[in-house]
Amino acid sequence: MKKVKMGMVGGGPDAFIGAVHRMAAQLDGQIELVCGVFSSTPEQSISFGKQLGLASSRCYGRFSDMLEQESQLPAEQKMELLAIVTPNHLHFSMASEAIKYGFHVISDKPATTSLAQALTLARQLASCDVLYALTYTYTGYPMVKEARHRVLTGELGQIRKVVVSYQQGWLGDMQAEGSKQASWRLDPVQAGLSCCMGDIGVHAANLAEYICDQPITHLCADLSTAHEHRVLDDEGTVLLRFGETIKGVLLASQVATGEENNLSISVYGEKASLTWQQQVPNNLIIRFADSSTQIIRSGVANHSSLAIRNTRLPAGHPEGYIEAFANVYRNFAAQIRAQQAGKSADDAAMDVPGITEGIRGMLFIDSVVRSSESSQKWHAVQGAQLHD
Amino acid sequence: MKKVKMGMVGGGPDAFIGAVHRMAAQLDGQIELVCGVFSSTPEQSISFGKQLGLASSRCYGRFSDMLEQESQLPAEQKMELLAIVTPNHLHFSMASEAIKYGFHVISDKPATTSLAQALTLARQLASCDVLYALTYTYTGYPMVKEARHRVLTGELGQIRKVVVSYQQGWLGDMQAEGSKQASWRLDPVQAGLSCCMGDIGVHAANLAEYICDQPITHLCADLSTAHEHRVLDDEGTVLLRFGETIKGVLLASQVATGEENNLSISVYGEKASLTWQQQVPNNLIIRFADSSTQIIRSGVANHSSLAIRNTRLPAGHPEGYIEAFANVYRNFAAQIRAQQAGKSADDAAMDVPGITEGIRGMLFIDSVVRSSESSQKWHAVQGAQLHD
Amino acid sequence: MKKVKMGMVGGGPDAFIGAVHRMAAQLDGQIELVCGVFSSTPEQSISFGKQLGLASSRCYGRFSDMLEQESQLPAEQKMELLAIVTPNHLHFSMASEAIKYGFHVISDKPATTSLAQALTLARQLASCDVLYALTYTYTGYPMVKEARHRVLTGELGQIRKVVVSYQQGWLGDMQAEGSKQASWRLDPVQAGLSCCMGDIGVHAANLAEYICDQPITHLCADLSTAHEHRVLDDEGTVLLRFGETIKGVLLASQVATGEENNLSISVYGEKASLTWQQQVPNNLIIRFADSSTQIIRSGVANHSSLAIRNTRLPAGHPEGYIEAFANVYRNFAAQIRAQQAGKSADDAAMDVPGITEGIRGMLFIDSVVRSSESSQKWHAVQGAQLHD
Amino acid sequence: MKKVKMGMVGGGPDAFIGAVHRMAAQLDGQIELVCGVFSSTPEQSISFGKQLGLASSRCYGRFSDMLEQESQLPAEQKMELLAIVTPNHLHFSMASEAIKYGFHVISDKPATTSLAQALTLARQLASCDVLYALTYTYTGYPMVKEARHRVLTGELGQIRKVVVSYQQGWLGDMQAEGSKQASWRLDPVQAGLSCCMGDIGVHAANLAEYICDQPITHLCADLSTAHEHRVLDDEGTVLLRFGETIKGVLLASQVATGEENNLSISVYGEKASLTWQQQVPNNLIIRFADSSTQIIRSGVANHSSLAIRNTRLPAGHPEGYIEAFANVYRNFAAQIRAQQAGKSADDAAMDVPGITEGIRGMLFIDSVVRSSESSQKWHAVQGAQLHD
Repeated sequence: MKKVKMGMVGGGPDAFIGAVHRMAAQLDGQIELVCGVFSSTPEQSISFGKQLGLASSRCYGRFSDMLEQESQLPAEQKMELLAIVTPNHLHFSMASEAIKYGFHVISDKPATTSLAQALTLARQLASCDVLYALTYTYTGYPMVKEARHRVLTGELGQIRKVVVSYQQGWLGDMQAEGSKQASWRLDPVQAGLSCCMGDIGVHAANLAEYICDQPITHLCADLSTAHEHRVLDDEGTVLLRFGETIKGVLLASQVATGEENNLSISVYGEKASLTWQQQVPNNLIIRFADSSTQIIRSGVANHSSLAIRNTRLPAGHPEGYIEAFANVYRNFAAQIRAQQAGKSADDAAMDVPGITEGIRGMLFIDSVVRSSESSQKWHAVQGAQLHD
Repeated sequence: MKKVKMGMVGGGPDAFIGAVHRMAAQLDGQIELVCGVFSSTPEQSISFGKQLGLASSRCYGRFSDMLEQESQLPAEQKMELLAIVTPNHLHFSMASEAIKYGFHVISDKPATTSLAQALTLARQLASCDVLYALTYTYTGYPMVKEARHRVLTGELGQIRKVVVSYQQGWLGDMQAEGSKQASWRLDPVQAGLSCCMGDIGVHAANLAEYICDQPITHLCADLSTAHEHRVLDDEGTVLLRFGETIKGVLLASQVATGEENNLSISVYGEKASLTWQQQVPNNLIIRFADSSTQIIRSGVANHSSLAIRNTRLPAGHPEGYIEAFANVYRNFAAQIRAQQAGKSADDAAMDVPGITEGIRGMLFIDSVVRSSESSQKWHAVQGAQLHD
Repeated sequence: MKKVKMGMVGGGPDAFIGAVHRMAAQLDGQIELVCGVFSSTPEQSISFGKQLGLASSRCYGRFSDMLEQESQLPAEQKMELLAIVTPNHLHFSMASEAIKYGFHVISDKPATTSLAQALTLARQLASCDVLYALTYTYTGYPMVKEARHRVLTGELGQIRKVVVSYQQGWLGDMQAEGSKQASWRLDPVQAGLSCCMGDIGVHAANLAEYICDQPITHLCADLSTAHEHRVLDDEGTVLLRFGETIKGVLLASQVATGEENNLSISVYGEKASLTWQQQVPNNLIIRFADSSTQIIRSGVANHSSLAIRNTRLPAGHPEGYIEAFANVYRNFAAQIRAQQAGKSADDAAMDVPGITEGIRGMLFIDSVVRSSESSQKWHAVQGAQLHD
Repeated sequence: MKKVKMGMVGGGPDAFIGAVHRMAAQLDGQIELVCGVFSSTPEQSISFGKQLGLASSRCYGRFSDMLEQESQLPAEQKMELLAIVTPNHLHFSMASEAIKYGFHVISDKPATTSLAQALTLARQLASCDVLYALTYTYTGYPMVKEARHRVLTGELGQIRKVVVSYQQGWLGDMQAEGSKQASWRLDPVQAGLSCCMGDIGVHAANLAEYICDQPITHLCADLSTAHEHRVLDDEGTVLLRFGETIKGVLLASQVATGEENNLSISVYGEKASLTWQQQVPNNLIIRFADSSTQIIRSGVANHSSLAIRNTRLPAGHPEGYIEAFANVYRNFAAQIRAQQAGKSADDAAMDVPGITEGIRGMLFIDSVVRSSESSQKWHAVQGAQLHD
C-alpha cells in the first residue's frame, strides 16, 4: 500500500502544533511528508525542510511555488494532500488556492476567520472532488466515539442536558501575554472576533454537537476578560439549547489558574448519563439510574466499531493526544484512498471533521460574541440549518 | 458541662432528615434530646417519642402543648433549644412561635417559604435575645471552612470565577413522583416557588457565598423540567455575578440520571484555584499557576483554626455528612452556652448559618424564578444589601 | 426502647480513642453512657466524668469501685455494658473482672497481649452468658460487608489471591517518638511482641479473613524497623496462605512517609476481583473478566442486607470512620437486647467481632514475629483450627 | 538531519508488538524503516514488507539474506539499526549475528532466554563498537524519569521501602490459553523458566531498580499457577532487598481477573514517598511527612531535564504507551548519531536500557524461580555485582 504523499505549509521550528501534525500524520505509516514550506522566510523554510530529512528540491521558500511545482510532478511523486498549519488568518486563502490546484486539504482549526469565508469555502468544495478535513482533535479519541455511539443507540435514553467545560489557565498570568502563543490569540486582527471562545470554546461546542449529534440552536453568552486592557474574551459561560428538548451549558476559560487542558463533557439522558475527561482519555464513565457506575475503558473488545478502529493498543496501554490526532489523519488518508480507488469510503473513513464542522464553528463564535453584547437572553444560532 | 436540652418538632418514623438531626445533635455529647412532637398524629408522636427513649411526660401530641408545658418546667429541666424538622411550609410559623416563648431555634432549611416571611423572622429575632440557626449542612464540612479561609487570606488572589454544581438524579424517574419525598417538593403549595432551586440550588448558592464571602448580586437563570406535567423546575443553570468582578455559574439538577448527591465547587483566583467535592469531602484540591496541584486533607495539623475545630479525627479517618451536620449543632450549642454564660461566643461558635443566610436563600430562589421567566438577560438580586 | 446503659474505663481527656468510642456508642441513640472511670488518677477521672455530664455518683475513681458499686444498683439503673479503652496491657484483666460481675464487655483491640490470655478469656466467656465484642472498626464499614457478601455468594468465583495493605507514616519521623501514642507502642512491656503488626497489621489480617471467610494458615514474614534503636518492628511484609488454594500478601507500615491511614484490600477471584480503600470508604470497585469495572456505592438499595443495615444515609451522603465504629456498637447493642429478651440475635446483631477474632489476632501477631526471626520460609499459624 | 535507517526482523501481520515498534520508531521522524524480514514464511514476509510501503528489493524472505545483502549496500542506503521483534528464543542468536555484521541492535525484551546467553552477548558487545538497546518500555515514561530524579536528588531522603505491582488478568481464563499470545508464554521451550515473572515481573523489577538506582540483592519468592496443568508460574509475590537498607515487595500476576496492564510503584523514603501508575502515566504523586500530597504532571516546565526531554506536549495533553516506547527509540537514535559523529552522547541519549539491564532481568528471573522452589527464606541474587 502506498503512503499518501503530504506537503505542509507552516509548522516551522517554533511551532508546537506543526510538530504535532507531523507526528500525527506519520504515526501509522500511512502518510509520508514529501514537501513543505515551513516559514515565511524562504531561507528558514528550506533549511528547516532539510532538517526534517526532505529532499532539497521539495523544500520550498514560497507557498505559491510549492503549489505550482508540485502540480507539475509526475503522479507517483507529487503531493496529494496539503496540511495547513499556519496562523489562522491564512487558513482560508491557502485552502482555497490548494483546492484550485486539486490538492486535498487538511487544515488546522479554525477553517477560516469568518462565517462568510467558511461558506465560500464550502461552496468551492461542493463544486469539485477535492477532500477537506479539519483537525478537531478531541473527537478523534476512541472513548468520545464510544460516547457518541452510546447516545445514538439510545443507551442514555432521550438526552436532557449537556455540560461541557474547557478550562485552561495559561493566559491568566499577565506575563503570558508576551509569548507568541498569547499575542496573536489576543489580537483581533489575527484571531478574529474572539480569543477564548474562538480558540477553545469552539472545541467544546464541536465535542458536544458530535457526541449528541445535534446542533446548538440557541445560546446565551456571558464573556469576559480577566485583564481590563484585553479587547477579546479570555473566558466565558454560555447557556445552550439544542433544539426544543436538550439544554446545556458550555464553560470555557484560558485564565482558570492551575488548569492545564481540562476539557470534559457530561451528557445526561433519561436512562443514564456519561462523563468523559480529556486528561483521563481512556476512561468513559457511565452512570445508571440505580446509581451503579461503570468505567468503560478503551481497548476492550466489546466496544462500537468506531471506537475499536480508532484504538491501537489493548486495554491498559494508554493512548493520548497524539493518537487522537493521528486518528483524524489516518481516517482522512483512508477517505482519500477510497476516492482514488473509486470506492465509497467506509464509516471510519467518513468520520472526519470537515467543512460542515468548520461552518458550525464559525457560527458558534459569531453567535457567542453577539449574544454576549446583547441584553436579550436568547440568541438564535442563525444558519444552524446548514448542518444538514 | 451540662448538655443543651433540645426538643424536636417533626422527624417521625419515616422522616430521613429527622433521624439525621438527632444523630448530628447527639454525636458530640453536647446536646440531649429531652422532648418532642414527632408527628401530626398525636398518638403516633407520643409512641415514637417513647421509642426514642424519652420520658413519657415529655412526648407531646401537639406543638402548642410542647411550647406551653416546656415553658413552665424548671430551668434545669426545660427545653432550651427547639429543632424544627417539619415540612417547609411550617418552618416559619413554628420558629416564630418558639421565639415568642424564648426558645432558641435550629431550623431545617429553608427558613421560610417566602422572602417576606424571612424578613419578618429576621425582625423578630433582632428584637429579642433568642438565637437562631439554619442547617445548611454543607458549610459544616471542615474542608469547606478551609477553602473559605484560603480565599479570605488571599492565597487564591483576586477571585475571578466560581463554578458550583449540584447534581442529583433521583427525581428523573417518573416513578419517583409517587414517593413522599417527591410529592411535596413538586407541589407549589408545599414547596413554594421552586423545586430544584429551592431544594438544592439554594445549597449551592449558599456554599458559593460562604466560601467567597460575597453575595450574588445579579443572575441569569434558565430553569426547566424534565417532565411536561411538572409545574416546578427540576433542573436549571444560572449565570452569576458577585458584584463587579466575580463571575460564576451555578448548575443544579434533580434529574441528572445516576448522580447521587454530587455537590461540587471550583473557585478560580488570580494566583490559584480550588475544588471541593461533597462526595469526597476530606479532600480539598488546590492548583497553582505553575500547574502543581496539592491535595489538602482534613485532619492535618497545619490547617486554619476553623477547619481544625470542625474536625474530630486524625487524617485518613474519613468524616462525612453526619459529622458536617453535627458541626452546625456543636457550634450552635457553644453559641447558646456562651450567651448563657454572658460571654461573647468565639469564632467557631459564631460560624453557624442563621437568618441572614435564610434571607439570602429566599432572595436567591425568588430571583432565579423571576429571571427564568424573563427575556432580559440579567436580573438584579434585590435586597442583596441585606447581607451586611 | 430503652437504651443500653454503658460504663467506660479509660478514655480520659487526652485519649483520642476514648472520644471515638463515646461518639460511636451514642451516635444512634441506642446506648447511653451512665458511668465511668476515665483516668488512673481518681480526681481526674471524677472531674472528667462530670465534664461529660455524668451524674456525680456515677463518676468513679477506681475500676474496682465501679464494678462493685454498679453491680449493686437496681437493674433499671445499673451499667449493663463496659467499654474498655485503656492501654493494651490492661484489656485482659479488666475484661476478665467485668465478666465475673456479669457485665457485657466491648473492648478496644487487641483483646489481650498474649495468645495464652486470649485463650483464657475465651474459656471464661464460654462458661457464662456474658457477651463480648472487640472493636475491629474496619469490618464495620458497609462496603466491607458488601465485599464479604460478594465473595460468599460466589460472584468472584474461587478466590485466588488477597492483597491487603495498611500504610501509615506518622511513626516515620524520629520526633514522633516523643509522643504518648508512639512511646507505648514502641515499648515491648506495654505493646507486646510487635509494634506495627500488633497495632495495624492485625487490622489488615482481620479484614482479609473477614472478607474471604478463611483463616490465614501459613505465613512468611519480613519485619523491620526504620530506626536502629527501636526494638519492635515499625513495618513489614508478610506472604500469606489461606489453606491450600488462596495466596496473599499483607503489607503494613507505620513509617510510610506521607501516608495517613491507608488501609486497602484487593481480592482476586476466578470470575472477578474487588478493591476497597478505607480512605474512600463509600466505594467498592469490582472488575470483571471483560475489563468492565463497576463502582459500587454505599447507600444504594440493591445491596446485601448487611450492607444496607449498616448504612444510615442515602447514596452520595458520605459516611466515615465514626459510623463504621458505631456499627459495631449498634450491632452489639442489638445482640445484648436480643439476649435480654430471650430471643436469638439476627444476622446483623451477630456480625460483630468477638473473642474468636481476638484469638486470631494474637495468633497472627505471634506467628508473624516468629516467622520473621526464622530462616525457614513458611511458618504454620498454629491454632488456626480454633477458627471453627 | 538524516534519519537512522532501520531494518526489522519479526513483527508480521498478527504481531501486536511489531506494529508498536514501528509506530514508536517512526513517531518522531528520526528513524526510517528501510527493510525487513517479517515472517518465517518468505512469501508472507515479502508481501507484508510491500504492504508497509518498503521497496521490493528491501523486503527479504530470510534473516541471513537481509544481513548479507544490506551489509553490501552503500552507506547512504544500508540499514544501520536492526529491530528484533521475534519470539524470545530467537533474540539472542539474531542479535549476535547482527552484531557480527556491525549493525546496531534494538531488541524486544528479554535480551535472551538464559543468563549465560546474556553474559555472552555482553562480552560480544564489550569487544566491538556496536550499540545495543533493550525495549523496557516503562522506564521510557517521563514521570518515571522524574521519579528517578527525585530519588537521586534526595528529595525522598533515604529510601526505606519499594512496593511494585504488575497486575494483568488476561491469562486467568482457561480460554485464553488457546491464543497465540498465551501458548508460547506458557511453554517452557519458548518462554524459558517463567511465564509471569519472565514476561511482566521482570518489567516491575527493572522499574524498581531504575527508579531507585539500586540492584535487588536478595529475594524470597512465592510463585504459583492458577491452573494445575500449567507448568510455569502465572502469578507470584517476591520479598525484596536492595542491599542492606532498602526493603521491598514485588507482586506480579497475569491471572488477576479484570486487571488490564496495571503496573504501579510506590517508593517510601525518610522524607517523602511517591507513587506512579502506568495506567495514569502523566501523574506522579508525592506525599510529604506533613500529609500534604502533590500531583506532579508531565509537561510542566520545572521538571528535571530528562523528564522534559522525554515529553513532547504541554501539560494536559496526555502522552501514553507509544510515546514512552518512542522515547527509547528516539534516545537510542541520538546515541547512534553521536557515535557516528564521533561525539559523546548526552544524558538523554545514554538513558536507554541496554545489555546491563538485560543481564539484570535474566538474574531476576533465574533467582525468583530458584527461590520459589526453596524452603529457605532468602536467596542471594548472584551476579548482582555486574550492575557496576
